[in-house]
Amino acid sequence: MTKPEAMRALWIESQQLSIRETDPTQPNDTVEVAVSLAGICGTDLELLRGYYDFVGVPGHEFVGKVVSGADAGQRVVADINFGCGTCFMCKKGQQHHCPERKVLGIKGTTGAFAEVVHVPGKNLISVPDHVSDWQAAQAEPLAAALQILEQVTLKGSVLLVGAGRLGRMVARVIHALAPQAELTVCVRAERPGLQQLYRCINIAEIEAHSYDFAIDCTGQPEGFELALAAVRPRGCLIAKSTYGRRLQIDMSRVVVDEIRILGSRCGPMDKAIKCIADGTIALPEEGIVYYPLTDYSLAFEKATDPNTEKVFFHI
Amino acid sequence: MTKPEAMRALWIESQQLSIRETDPTQPNDTVEVAVSLAGICGTDLELLRGYYDFVGVPGHEFVGKVVSGADAGQRVVADINFGCGTCFMCKKGQQHHCPERKVLGIKGTTGAFAEVVHVPGKNLISVPDHVSDWQAAQAEPLAAALQILEQVTLKGSVLLVGAGRLGRMVARVIHALAPQAELTVCVRAERPGLQQLYRCINIAEIEAHSYDFAIDCTGQPEGFELALAAVRPRGCLIAKSTYGRRLQIDMSRVVVDEIRILGSRCGPMDKAIKCIADGTIALPEEGIVYYPLTDYSLAFEKATDPNTEKVFFHI
Repeated sequence: MTKPEAMRALWIESQQLSIRETDPTQPNDTVEVAVSLAGICGTDLELLRGYYDFVGVPGHEFVGKVVSGADAGQRVVADINFGCGTCFMCKKGQQHHCPERKVLGIKGTTGAFAEVVHVPGKNLISVPDHVSDWQAAQAEPLAAALQILEQVTLKGSVLLVGAGRLGRMVARVIHALAPQAELTVCVRAERPGLQQLYRCINIAEIEAHSYDFAIDCTGQPEGFELALAAVRPRGCLIAKSTYGRRLQIDMSRVVVDEIRILGSRCGPMDKAIKCIADGTIALPEEGIVYYPLTDYSLAFEKATDPNTEKVFFHI
Repeated sequence: MTKPEAMRALWIESQQLSIRETDPTQPNDTVEVAVSLAGICGTDLELLRGYYDFVGVPGHEFVGKVVSGADAGQRVVADINFGCGTCFMCKKGQQHHCPERKVLGIKGTTGAFAEVVHVPGKNLISVPDHVSDWQAAQAEPLAAALQILEQVTLKGSVLLVGAGRLGRMVARVIHALAPQAELTVCVRAERPGLQQLYRCINIAEIEAHSYDFAIDCTGQPEGFELALAAVRPRGCLIAKSTYGRRLQIDMSRVVVDEIRILGSRCGPMDKAIKCIADGTIALPEEGIVYYPLTDYSLAFEKATDPNTEKVFFHI
């Protein structure tokens, strides 16, 4: 084979999805990875709604196998932020905040809803043999949830607003790794499965100005507002999701009550894989659904249901 | 004298000021203080604009003399937050955040634009003899500026947005007490006096997403927006003023760039008096103007000019 063959991928453009044969040329300093599983995440749904200015192959939660070289066959996941490696933030080890960064399948680089994906070698994390593909492919959202604990020590009462996929991942992390946190999950409807695991309340049961921490995982302005109303003076509001529009905020309440608001995004992929591998975080297998790439319409439709545990493309 | 005489005070109601003879009855557990000087602050201007639901005697920045008892004649200033003393926050030493607190001349209690003011004894701080009245009466805004250093260690580049009275007080505090901060002050117009003291820039010169800290002292939504645009990824925005209306915020930027927003309000009065007494913070005497209480219209008008250093009622 002297020239790589065209590869098949899911393409997003003008709020439309399609299957395309894409350019298989491998960028310098990247490793070619054959994608096994790739998960649909809330950000992918937002890409489709046109919230981001992205044209190309989406997909950033995946597990795959290195195609060639010394590591050929090694199963890997990837840190999705590709820093430039030379700027002030990269040199501080904060490539997640490199102003020139590319973000896999979100910004400036081709994503994982494809037969192969090209990732800088430094971004790859090996997956131990006993970790299943469906577990490893959730390392990215797990890392995002773990990021909260990289930023703060959760102690005292914690209200989690939103029990979608991200919210449930955050709940798992708090339950397993923040023993000093008294977790309450705010849900919009009856959720028997969740209620077995966590203390759940509905919106009307939120006690205003009372929680040490409130975490918004809804991605909705109303969710942020609930979290802000719930947090106590000198408490901390963690904003875990991006929002489709600007928020209207009572910032005077933030000033008078000296509230801390903390934005939180991507987290440590190596720790996520470790937590899965050593059993610290048990991901549920129930409710996971798999589609071939060609069933992208069904898959994206299914992913809009927050009760679906996870939708994967099996590639 | 078997019955106290009526006292003269400035009264605020329905966005109107007037002089009244008010009820001189001393509440239990308070000390009667004869007010010497009382300063007009931004919050007082907001009270007059009707931003707060307050009817009564305003005024919370003052110095006076204890009227009777063992401490008679002692000059004092006061912490303006009167906590209940028994709630969770008060027991944590955070009476500033007591949900039942009264706030001198702002909420639930009669303020200092009056011949006498009644303050719980535990809220009084003695003023050393060598501290002038005009200095002591500025302990409250100085304490508010000092509060920033109680909350964070300012280190690296700091952009201060707004050079009104509060902004200048914050600049003084940073200059004197945060040696690791590289301070830049954003001003709207030429300010030769300030430019001699601090590195000043105009709005167009703000480098976006670059400052470790940005502090908004404008009380204006536009000021908050400038501060948010200025702060770097993983940087900290300190909101030091309340706002007359809800803010429209790009919270997705806060999430993606993992920015920390910190509300900041009242600070340690004892430290403020100490900083004045030991010369750590030198307050300027130039630009201070004095009015009798009866000239309240002139005084409030003068206080709307941000270039006036301070307006005091001389009582």
